[in-house]
Amino acid sequence: MNIRFKPIGVVHSPFRKPQDIPKKRVYDTQSYEPVEGELEIFAEFQEGLKDIEGFSHLIILFSFHKSRQEHLTAHPPCQTKTRGVFATRSPHRPNLIGMTVVRLIERNGKILRVSGIDMIEGTPVLDIKPYTSRDQKMDIRLGWIETV
Amino acid sequence: MNIRFKPIGVVHSPFRKPQDIPKKRVYDTQSYEPVEGELEIFAEFQEGLKDIEGFSHLIILFSFHKSRQEHLTAHPPCQTKTRGVFATRSPHRPNLIGMTVVRLIERNGKILRVSGIDMIEGTPVLDIKPYTSRDQKMDIRLGWIETV
Repeated sequence: MNIRFKPIGVVHSPFRKPQDIPKKRVYDTQSYEPVEGELEIFAEFQEGLKDIEGFSHLIILFSFHKSRQEHLTAHPPCQTKTRGVFATRSPHRPNLIGMTVVRLIERNGKILRVSGIDMIEGTPVLDIKPYTSRDQKMDIRLGWIETV
Repeated sequence: MNIRFKPIGVVHSPFRKPQDIPKKRVYDTQSYEPVEGELEIFAEFQEGLKDIEGFSHLIILFSFHKSRQEHLTAHPPCQTKTRGVFATRSPHRPNLIGMTVVRLIERNGKILRVSGIDMIEGTPVLDIKPYTSRDQKMDIRLGWIETV
């Protein structure tokens, strides 16, 4: 059984290649939150952006299109131990889907200017969802990240 | 260009069909947070679950496998107005991917017992990611939802 997805847009990012993305964003959220970029939504999907201006934050699902590796373990940045891939945000995973919450700065037609980008230039966008109170979880435990 | 994904597991849920899911979960997060279920991860991906026990909350990406509709607008529950689909969590969207944050109760081998389920029985799981501080956004604006 295979499930097929198509890009609905593309990310424009100051990061040209995966190595440009600050490694410490895994442990230090503030390190990438100011990074601005654009989501360019393809014209045939623009109608789906209606009403999006009202939301301050958006969930972006995208394809890790530069990854050719599907590992079950991952080696987090600056760590010596490997971890189960589902306990990491590694791009090298069984399904190459990434998820990042960005802040919406403004919308101009089919262009969304956002901050909090940690994707590279040319990343295919698969979906956009409004970030709502159901996504705000408090009192979280962070497993191996807490030991860093 | 098409991107292909494969299920890594399956959701076991008290909800048998989409109509069983409480409609008000869109506006009232508490309405589905206590709902318990299981994520059964297929044996060939079990190694990827290592270290997951340390995290209190998990991001589940899944396929809206019962949806056969790809709309650009959506009619949110109990609403008269339609909205752009990317400003809603509607299952009827260009790429049939859902995202829900669940609480991890316990892990038994390849079974994750979780709460906060709003998927139906048999939903294909595509990915699991740890929910971390980068996913906690405060001072959010909720657009049309705030007017409900």
